[in-house]
Amino acid sequence: MGIGPGGAAERTPRADRAIAQSDVIVGYSRYVRLIKDLCVGKETLATGMTREVERCRAAIERAQSGSIVALISSGDPGVYGMAGLAIELAEQMAPELEIEVVPGITAANAAAARMGAPLMLDYAVISLSDLLVPWEMIRQRLEAVASADLVAVLYNPRSRKRVRQLEETVEIFQRYHPTDTPVGIGTAISTPDEHIVLTNLGSLLAQEVNMKTVVIIGNTQSTKLKRWFLTPRGYTL
Amino acid sequence: MGIGPGGAAERTPRADRAIAQSDVIVGYSRYVRLIKDLCVGKETLATGMTREVERCRAAIERAQSGSIVALISSGDPGVYGMAGLAIELAEQMAPELEIEVVPGITAANAAAARMGAPLMLDYAVISLSDLLVPWEMIRQRLEAVASADLVAVLYNPRSRKRVRQLEETVEIFQRYHPTDTPVGIGTAISTPDEHIVLTNLGSLLAQEVNMKTVVIIGNTQSTKLKRWFLTPRGYTL
Repeated sequence: MGIGPGGAAERTPRADRAIAQSDVIVGYSRYVRLIKDLCVGKETLATGMTREVERCRAAIERAQSGSIVALISSGDPGVYGMAGLAIELAEQMAPELEIEVVPGITAANAAAARMGAPLMLDYAVISLSDLLVPWEMIRQRLEAVASADLVAVLYNPRSRKRVRQLEETVEIFQRYHPTDTPVGIGTAISTPDEHIVLTNLGSLLAQEVNMKTVVIIGNTQSTKLKRWFLTPRGYTL
Repeated sequence: MGIGPGGAAERTPRADRAIAQSDVIVGYSRYVRLIKDLCVGKETLATGMTREVERCRAAIERAQSGSIVALISSGDPGVYGMAGLAIELAEQMAPELEIEVVPGITAANAAAARMGAPLMLDYAVISLSDLLVPWEMIRQRLEAVASADLVAVLYNPRSRKRVRQLEETVEIFQRYHPTDTPVGIGTAISTPDEHIVLTNLGSLLAQEVNMKTVVIIGNTQSTKLKRWFLTPRGYTL
């Protein structure tokens, strides 16, 4: 609900209000720590990484027994976040449960703002993690996006164990775009560790990229100015 | 900077702070009215629709003469908003000007939250307006997105004079997806006139769609539950 690193740590008044009105706060422990100002006097259920299903079940169970529950997600809960899983599980466990999804600023938009304006034309958001989606499907999407000259925003581009996907992505894009196509690399956006690099397609693999990074690959209109990564909309100036 | 209808009327503390610190507020008159609480005691330059270039020039000129200027955009200024034009013009007029882009919640994410969780898997954002981009290019992008089974978010889907684009879009998607593919139609999101319709690809053209609408077309994983439009991420439940 608009909170957390690895994406956008932009809090919104609506998310803060929803959390303030809750009795129980459920979330990944790192994200719950980021809103500890809102946790005072409330019960918190903070669990470790990759325990999403368990966490959602706990949130729904508490809501079924009458509590108002805030389920915390990073960035926008509707983009690779907890909203889908919560709705899916609630449909099975408690189809009449009242649910409100509070949108947040997802990493694509937060990172783009720090780089300039790379998303002024049509763009696609793709996760390179093949934990839940087969790599062949992701590869096909990358191919489609590169061939149709869409700006591409890559989530989960590389982890310590998973490096091949980003290499293959660069190979695909280089088939359609010159090596000097602008690329923006945004890590830990909106946190004290925020780090932005503007580079190009040919140099992307030499850069530090991890699970807190989003990578934006420009299209054939994109350009790198002195300070900015820009995809002009096409106005006559 | 996170303000306005036709997209997300979610204000963020960071945008509000930036506006509060400015001397001059520049924007489309309808958006400036939405933040009149922040305009007290400030100079405002509010201009009509489709005067984007003029508005940006005025903002930059005021900044060059020493004012702190807030240039207001609707939703996220980096998505079909004013950020790109401002950076492009500043590069010509005042390359040393200090600029900060404040991200906002774009209509794709605001509308998705009201519909459930349609953007849990990879998605593309495409504007159907062919004012600045040739229709043939847009058509190609729609084809690529439909064929690669990406969820599609359509901005500017239809205006009074421009109706053919949405019809053609439906034809394209029907070549790859069944007619019962879930579709969400969100109009005037986060305003008092907000209106959400969950329907399907076969019935999309029969619905009210205008320039304040975003249309979300699901992929082959998407499903319509009783109250929600969901694209499951693929967790084993």
